[in-house]
Amino acid sequence: MSRISEATVRRLSHYYRVLEEVAAEGKRMISSHLLAEREGITSAQVRKDLSSFGSFGRRGLGYHVEHLRGEIRALLGLDRRWRACVVGAGHIGTALLGYRGFSDQGFDIVAVFDADAERVGRTLGGLVVRPVAQLSARDGFEIGVIATPVRAAQEVADALVAAGVSGILNFAPRKLRVPESVALRTVDMTMEFESLSYALTHARAAGPRRRRPRVAR
Amino acid sequence: MSRISEATVRRLSHYYRVLEEVAAEGKRMISSHLLAEREGITSAQVRKDLSSFGSFGRRGLGYHVEHLRGEIRALLGLDRRWRACVVGAGHIGTALLGYRGFSDQGFDIVAVFDADAERVGRTLGGLVVRPVAQLSARDGFEIGVIATPVRAAQEVADALVAAGVSGILNFAPRKLRVPESVALRTVDMTMEFESLSYALTHARAAGPRRRRPRVAR
Repeated sequence: MSRISEATVRRLSHYYRVLEEVAAEGKRMISSHLLAEREGITSAQVRKDLSSFGSFGRRGLGYHVEHLRGEIRALLGLDRRWRACVVGAGHIGTALLGYRGFSDQGFDIVAVFDADAERVGRTLGGLVVRPVAQLSARDGFEIGVIATPVRAAQEVADALVAAGVSGILNFAPRKLRVPESVALRTVDMTMEFESLSYALTHARAAGPRRRRPRVAR
Repeated sequence: MSRISEATVRRLSHYYRVLEEVAAEGKRMISSHLLAEREGITSAQVRKDLSSFGSFGRRGLGYHVEHLRGEIRALLGLDRRWRACVVGAGHIGTALLGYRGFSDQGFDIVAVFDADAERVGRTLGGLVVRPVAQLSARDGFEIGVIATPVRAAQEVADALVAAGVSGILNFAPRKLRVPESVALRTVDMTMEFESLSYALTHARAAGPRRRRPRVAR
């Protein structure tokens, strides 16, 4: 396979979570049915996703947990550590710095920057907030997280690109321009609400207890 | 069409953003090419997504902006308002309450709750933080947002279900059990990082300037 869609990458992330859980429970094998059940997708989809990168379960036995986990880990780039910085020490930045899950998966947030002199010098998640003007290639950041107000986001994106990051995770609700060589993901909270309102609208149309989304036309 | 995948719903949300932008610019028509270009997907995908719910562009003219916008708005359940509450007045809750974009799309956050007596009574985003024990069906919430620590998340989910919500947006990094009649979306920040590490890993393998992800095996 030469290309994986973003939706497939998301499903692989999900499978990886399930595999970590069952590994922690000491299980050696897992069926596509169980991988599917836990995520609310079909076992046929699981088999298709996994076969497309060369991993095949054995009929009646399923997938070898450790082997599959190792393969997905490598595929997702989780078999190494990533140096990340956060720009913006407001509520989102603070929430991100307080979350230990990133480091567990290999994402080390090693610096935090802010433009506000009042915030510079404070300690957040064990890091001293630095002035955003100090952002430079010397730190060797690979991933930059934008957690600033909308009006500052493009300028910060430009500064991160100049500092040499290869990927940007953007929490500001606006589109950013970055060079093609830089991967950009924008977390759009409104989109999460819209996914819910879609589900609720179509559950209602089909009756109160019905979950499967349906379109009227 | 009887069913739309979550990935399709996300693309519809994207198209809706683009349509709002071009409507604000006063444009009457938009091509599938432009809808695609702005989102980095193919125009064939746009045409497929839109035709599958009965909207067809006219060759050489494209789609009628207002008409298409109205159709997607109705499909996503954005042609009405939704009553939502936030449980957890920490950093994520505060960030959500400070964001005006939700209300613009019809999501009214009308209450905020917290279990911490220190936070109860404070004002956040114009709302007074209420004790979580006050969460009840009397308020008529349709959507509940969980922005609590992991350890409280399941209990809060149960309380939201008891209060009659139809949908839950969960920011706590754990799986929650809810009845089948309740739609649940979990925002997993680590997954966003993993989407980036996947892109960076496969961009690197194929050379510094290459964007298209490639899998070695």
